Amino acid sequence: MGTAAGGGFPQWNCWCRCCREARTNPENARQRSQSSAAISADGHHWFLLNASPDVRDQLSRLPSNGHPSSTRYVPIEGVVLSDAELDHTLGVTLLREARHLPIYATPAIRAILERDSRILPVVRAFGDVPVTELPPDTIQALRHRDGEPSGLTVEAFTVPAGPPQFALDAAEGHTVGLMIRDEAGGSCAFVPGCGGLGPALMARLAEADILLFDGTFWDDDELKGLGISQRTAREMDHLPIGGPDGSLARLATLPCRHKVYTHINNTNPVLLERSPERAAVVAAGLQVGFDGLQLTADS
Amino acid sequence: MGTAAGGGFPQWNCWCRCCREARTNPENARQRSQSSAAISADGHHWFLLNASPDVRDQLSRLPSNGHPSSTRYVPIEGVVLSDAELDHTLGVTLLREARHLPIYATPAIRAILERDSRILPVVRAFGDVPVTELPPDTIQALRHRDGEPSGLTVEAFTVPAGPPQFALDAAEGHTVGLMIRDEAGGSCAFVPGCGGLGPALMARLAEADILLFDGTFWDDDELKGLGISQRTAREMDHLPIGGPDGSLARLATLPCRHKVYTHINNTNPVLLERSPERAAVVAAGLQVGFDGLQLTADS
Repeated sequence: MGTAAGGGFPQWNCWCRCCREARTNPENARQRSQSSAAISADGHHWFLLNASPDVRDQLSRLPSNGHPSSTRYVPIEGVVLSDAELDHTLGVTLLREARHLPIYATPAIRAILERDSRILPVVRAFGDVPVTELPPDTIQALRHRDGEPSGLTVEAFTVPAGPPQFALDAAEGHTVGLMIRDEAGGSCAFVPGCGGLGPALMARLAEADILLFDGTFWDDDELKGLGISQRTAREMDHLPIGGPDGSLARLATLPCRHKVYTHINNTNPVLLERSPERAAVVAAGLQVGFDGLQLTADS
Repeated sequence: MGTAAGGGFPQWNCWCRCCREARTNPENARQRSQSSAAISADGHHWFLLNASPDVRDQLSRLPSNGHPSSTRYVPIEGVVLSDAELDHTLGVTLLREARHLPIYATPAIRAILERDSRILPVVRAFGDVPVTELPPDTIQALRHRDGEPSGLTVEAFTVPAGPPQFALDAAEGHTVGLMIRDEAGGSCAFVPGCGGLGPALMARLAEADILLFDGTFWDDDELKGLGISQRTAREMDHLPIGGPDGSLARLATLPCRHKVYTHINNTNPVLLERSPERAAVVAAGLQVGFDGLQLTADS
């Protein structure tokens, strides 16, 4: 649905090289909304992986979003969360008109949404928001809003990352990857925020047919170089793409059918269609995600 | 900036007559983002009146939004809030990258943002969010981010309305109108949510050159008739436009130069360009607001 990091691309207050290009020359730098994915076993019943502040526009582009006969129609069956970051969860508030919106989240993510951002208590004032807890490393069925099985399961697994900046306290499991599997054996790993790629995590990701991975920054010093932040990519818990220790060199070795960067920050030169960084991603067998990209596990 | 009620137009989960038309035949039902206005004394320094979830796109349409030479540039000087509703305040969270974002709000609105939606504590984790309190019926200068006077003042005044559904508690002043004045004597009254038009409020609004007023519903039974809600417009604290006791009959008597409906719900037939309800608004000397509408106090 969306492939940009928080703030989108271009970002409202940014005039870096990439954002200028996205405004004036979008064929060389496609605009992107904030990261989120939709997944389905049947092409009709969809689950959102994270709900971004751009969810309203994103849902209008869902493939199955036709012309329902009823006055009100909710085109998604639930929202699965990988963390409690604002760019991944504010969309839950924007979906409050659903009146019944199932959420799937780890206990740690749920606690931040209850206490720190208060997204859950606020949305509960408008309707029912049942939360199915996802203890890490446990397979959980995803069900349609009417309780029927969807044919999909989800398993959360912790990844190296810090908690959201606004969280007063955060337990283990505040930031996870999600492995979604269908009944035919197809699988998708969704890891939009990740600070490192150790051997256990690499082994897990190797099992996925589709991998959507943290493409926030190209360079560890990307924001420092622009004078935007004093922190490196790694200090912000995002493994940069480039360099000998970057994610590209590691992910290039994985056998997944589709390997796609998402959650791409507006400063990342892979956003420029003709940049050497983009060419390096493609040469390594990965893709730079874009809004509207559709992938299937078996082709 | 935006002229629709919460959820926008079309609303993501709505297939009422107006929303269907907006999707399939937008020249007869312009799409609209969620309500917010931008106001300026000089056409360069802007204040937002409410910050909607669509603020990112809305800011890209600001008239003065050119090509700044710095890497980061904040095109607004502050946000003035008329209430703590989600469709009027979530944009504050989306502007967290500003790092310094002055807010103007009544003590009651501020309390809801601190305690219930927690928008202020959350945004404070990313930067400075100084709040200037607006006690009702008190004139306050609006200042640029650098502290310079803007040439504008604001006065908040309470209007008949209930507090946000999610607020656990709300003091007097949780919902106000805003009167903005410039040094040349021009004025704009911004009243996006209002449950009644008593004589004192009418007298106040009569002083404005520009009036932006609650156009949520045409009919008191609008949502009941569609089977969407059991509550009437008045029970939701929105004075309907139509009928002998509606806002149109009252506002038609005011001498303001520009009288515009905003915060228009997706079900309201005034959204249809050729509806009899639209014709009635125009015949009474009012306008149905649309995104991008620009008005000046003296012409």
